[in-house]
Amino acid sequence: MTALPLDVARQIVAAAREAGRKHDLKPLTVVVLDAGGHVVAVEREDGASTKRFEIAFGKAHGAVALGLGSRALMARAEQQPYFIAAATSAIGGALVPVPGGVLVRSADGELVGAVGVSGDTSDNDELAAVAGIEAVGLSPQTG
Amino acid sequence: MTALPLDVARQIVAAAREAGRKHDLKPLTVVVLDAGGHVVAVEREDGASTKRFEIAFGKAHGAVALGLGSRALMARAEQQPYFIAAATSAIGGALVPVPGGVLVRSADGELVGAVGVSGDTSDNDELAAVAGIEAVGLSPQTG
Amino acid sequence: MTALPLDVARQIVAAAREAGRKHDLKPLTVVVLDAGGHVVAVEREDGASTKRFEIAFGKAHGAVALGLGSRALMARAEQQPYFIAAATSAIGGALVPVPGGVLVRSADGELVGAVGVSGDTSDNDELAAVAGIEAVGLSPQTG
Amino acid sequence: MTALPLDVARQIVAAAREAGRKHDLKPLTVVVLDAGGHVVAVEREDGASTKRFEIAFGKAHGAVALGLGSRALMARAEQQPYFIAAATSAIGGALVPVPGGVLVRSADGELVGAVGVSGDTSDNDELAAVAGIEAVGLSPQTG
Repeated sequence: MTALPLDVARQIVAAAREAGRKHDLKPLTVVVLDAGGHVVAVEREDGASTKRFEIAFGKAHGAVALGLGSRALMARAEQQPYFIAAATSAIGGALVPVPGGVLVRSADGELVGAVGVSGDTSDNDELAAVAGIEAVGLSPQTG
Repeated sequence: MTALPLDVARQIVAAAREAGRKHDLKPLTVVVLDAGGHVVAVEREDGASTKRFEIAFGKAHGAVALGLGSRALMARAEQQPYFIAAATSAIGGALVPVPGGVLVRSADGELVGAVGVSGDTSDNDELAAVAGIEAVGLSPQTG
Repeated sequence: MTALPLDVARQIVAAAREAGRKHDLKPLTVVVLDAGGHVVAVEREDGASTKRFEIAFGKAHGAVALGLGSRALMARAEQQPYFIAAATSAIGGALVPVPGGVLVRSADGELVGAVGVSGDTSDNDELAAVAGIEAVGLSPQTG
Repeated sequence: MTALPLDVARQIVAAAREAGRKHDLKPLTVVVLDAGGHVVAVEREDGASTKRFEIAFGKAHGAVALGLGSRALMARAEQQPYFIAAATSAIGGALVPVPGGVLVRSADGELVGAVGVSGDTSDNDELAAVAGIEAVGLSPQTG
């Protein structure tokens, strides 16, 4: 069952891409997952390299898997790279610990999904993910 | 480089989903890949089970990998199940040999991508994929 | 160390492709491995589907791995599919048990490598592999 | 569909190997991929060690996957080793972040493939890849 309705996911994708255009970012790939870590919606913009889905998915999937935005996973990777390597292996390979994987929470703090963005710098990817989430009135958690 | 522009991929997804509503199908997941087998666009409808992206991706990815619609891959699986098992392993795991993975060709027959649909019966999944491809004036290859 | 010199491998590829043209076969992918099962030369003809290298490699690699042409591996798969599935897993995933993976032996019977071809029917793939091997005066073992 | 015709790929391989001879490099393995990251042509010179195909493929495949020459991937690995480890896992294992994986662009900047070379120092591997690409009038992107 989808915790994040497809209509909302599509609005998040559209708003994240719009933020990309507004800030003149490189072609973005935007992935929206539900609270179970499963794909709801994806769009890869023209000119993005081949495996951007896999990178964006890894940011969002790692975030849902460990319950932290991927910025916090980067901090952990800086401190304990062996933990992140082990966790990546343990969860089956999809965990990309750099900014751009953002948890989505409802007004009362419930986890409803995650957004992963890849294509520009990690900071800019995160900016686009946050813009997408805020555009639908939900709360982003980046770290 | 995307062989199938995102705008066209989104129209395919919309038309495939519309076919699903018109024929009263169960919630569909629609995946559009470029000619290299890489994700361009995905939408998973509310109520679809968790791993429908993976199933729909496997139909489309197997089709691109071997250059045949997934209906032809099913015929091969019926005759030589060990070949399909071996090919799946050889290409890295994503090949689902039942109808619903349809190659997308241009007017002059060039391969431009593939569409995978999962959610209803395999025949109905294929029907929705074909409807999506025809709606943008491209040619579906189901077998 | 290469058991099959690159110059010979390139002649095998050229002759296998020439056989494909002579018999009007679909676009072929030809892979030549040395006696250790490692890639020496590959050519994928224009119009071949994306994963044909992986399929052709799997035919030749499985042949070297078990010391039998892939036609004999198919016979084994018909009789004991669980053995072929287990062997595939045990050797790391690359074993495609249909004709087209042919061992290459010297005049005195020593194993010097293997050729894998994919693109047309399995029987035609094997025909092209055999033609390539015979063109350089070496002996093909198909089963 | 092959974005880089086999005839052009073969010329790239020949020119890269010629550069190796001219500069007295160790035996080289040269891999040419299309824009989707799929093998078009490979040659491994006599005396190269067994897994040079896998290394050269990983350089070129990582470059296509992330849209950067492998020299840029090395810079990223120096700064954030955990990112490169994570990306490698996310894209399925083939990403070698040292020089020698070079993107191939057309005159108007479109990505048409990638070349990976392994055998000598990484800098020399890159030199040979660049020579191969320039010999056919295409543009190399090393970083």
